[in-house]
Amino acid sequence: MSPAAGGRLAAALSNAGALGIIGTGSRDAPESILRDADDFRASAGEKRFGIGLMSWAVAARPELLDAAIAARPFAISLSFGDPTPHVKKVHDAGIQVISQVQTRASALVAEAAGVDLIVAQGTEAGGHTGDVGTLPLLQIVLDAVKLPVVAAGGIATGRGLAAVLAAGAAGAWIGTPFLVAEEARTSERARERFLRSDESQTTLTSVFDRAQDIPWPHEFRGRALANDFSARWNGREDALSASPDAKNELLEQKRKENYDVAFLYAGQSVGTLHAVRPAADIAREIADGAEPLLRNAASVLG
Amino acid sequence: MSPAAGGRLAAALSNAGALGIIGTGSRDAPESILRDADDFRASAGEKRFGIGLMSWAVAARPELLDAAIAARPFAISLSFGDPTPHVKKVHDAGIQVISQVQTRASALVAEAAGVDLIVAQGTEAGGHTGDVGTLPLLQIVLDAVKLPVVAAGGIATGRGLAAVLAAGAAGAWIGTPFLVAEEARTSERARERFLRSDESQTTLTSVFDRAQDIPWPHEFRGRALANDFSARWNGREDALSASPDAKNELLEQKRKENYDVAFLYAGQSVGTLHAVRPAADIAREIADGAEPLLRNAASVLG
Repeated sequence: MSPAAGGRLAAALSNAGALGIIGTGSRDAPESILRDADDFRASAGEKRFGIGLMSWAVAARPELLDAAIAARPFAISLSFGDPTPHVKKVHDAGIQVISQVQTRASALVAEAAGVDLIVAQGTEAGGHTGDVGTLPLLQIVLDAVKLPVVAAGGIATGRGLAAVLAAGAAGAWIGTPFLVAEEARTSERARERFLRSDESQTTLTSVFDRAQDIPWPHEFRGRALANDFSARWNGREDALSASPDAKNELLEQKRKENYDVAFLYAGQSVGTLHAVRPAADIAREIADGAEPLLRNAASVLG
Repeated sequence: MSPAAGGRLAAALSNAGALGIIGTGSRDAPESILRDADDFRASAGEKRFGIGLMSWAVAARPELLDAAIAARPFAISLSFGDPTPHVKKVHDAGIQVISQVQTRASALVAEAAGVDLIVAQGTEAGGHTGDVGTLPLLQIVLDAVKLPVVAAGGIATGRGLAAVLAAGAAGAWIGTPFLVAEEARTSERARERFLRSDESQTTLTSVFDRAQDIPWPHEFRGRALANDFSARWNGREDALSASPDAKNELLEQKRKENYDVAFLYAGQSVGTLHAVRPAADIAREIADGAEPLLRNAASVLG
């Protein structure tokens, strides 16, 4: 669900036994979605994959959904906005619908819309998300809906995976640890920044959307590494929207990869990252870490 | 750790097999700590209990720590500030030291200070806390220290307890569900407000501290139910500190129990609360809910 998640990273994860997801942006050209699907198939053949879309962006640009359907994924994730208007079209194409939710209310909307799987996304997650922590949200959503629920936000090690599976989640949706995967579409400089950031150095902010005039719905801010730009503009969003200079500065420093100004979206589990590795190794370490914890979980009952 | 947690609630929890904790405030009279301990013993005899103190408040008012020691608890929790200067005094009195931490860095400080138990407190928690979610913080702290680690923040049902125990926590520190316990020091009107609030209706704010001139360290804000007062002053903290009118308004509306202005600290798991019940019933439901999840956790391995 991040610009880092192209076809190559998704393929590495689907090849490793997970369901790789191709991320999209609200301004992407529809063809870029098809190119990512081609990249996926070049590495992973006919293995299953997903494509992540924002419902609010699809409402404005239906061509994004058309392209995602044409890419023939196993599942399309429709998040950040009401998925209801789009579910039938996806189902009619024989594609499963996933929806990320950030509150009990949005979980009930997604269930009523007829989606196949709900992802309870906590505020710890990187990129756009809500305000409720993964742990309380997961408890609340699991008890509110009948659908299977996958947990997202802050899951980065075997301990985190064991936690959400023990709570009753059907799986985990994991993003941030793969920002430093070899296959991620992230630059050397960005990876270096992720690796030296800790869990207390992210900010949930709308300033990077405001500075790019991206009309994200008000309730979803993006979790990014905190930097000089976010420190300067957090709490002054309206002034930022009215400042061409600040907007130009962001664009220019983004081109220069100056991350004291430009944004890098990342979740709080950025504090667990220590090395650039193949995505399959990262996935395997998380799964292998969870296995003994789940196998022995009953032992705490004495 | 909240004004709701007096001797009577702590006694109900210790009688139910948990370790009840008596909360204190930075401006409490030392005698009130002793009175709470008397209340505890009136209901729970010589059962174990804890007393929660803020390290920054103890640094300014050592008499709080002296009173807590004189109350002869099993454990004293020293949180929100460096516990190092106070650990020996507590240990010399034969009392265990607990410390809540909100980052990896503060966990390492607590371990080096010689505390006996670390509580990893996520941002979901009610009252004062940090910014990192329970799930990522727990993974990070468990891998950073050798001490036993208890999880706090957003744990309110059997699912949440199973999650943190499966992850490797030695236990759970649970507050918000007991705000509506029969034994809690909360008014009818406050309970009614807790019961109708959902997980998305809290705010992490310093405005209630600012309005009362309570010198909480900058890095710890309090999670409270969002209301008109927090909406008005969040982001305008310096103006609030300079406004006698706003401060008087808060005091006055607090006396009137007008919670559109006055504060009620609560965690995000407030969204799981449905009824006023005895504390023992709440504790038993959480434990009974976790048991089958932990017993069957290995089954997800197939």
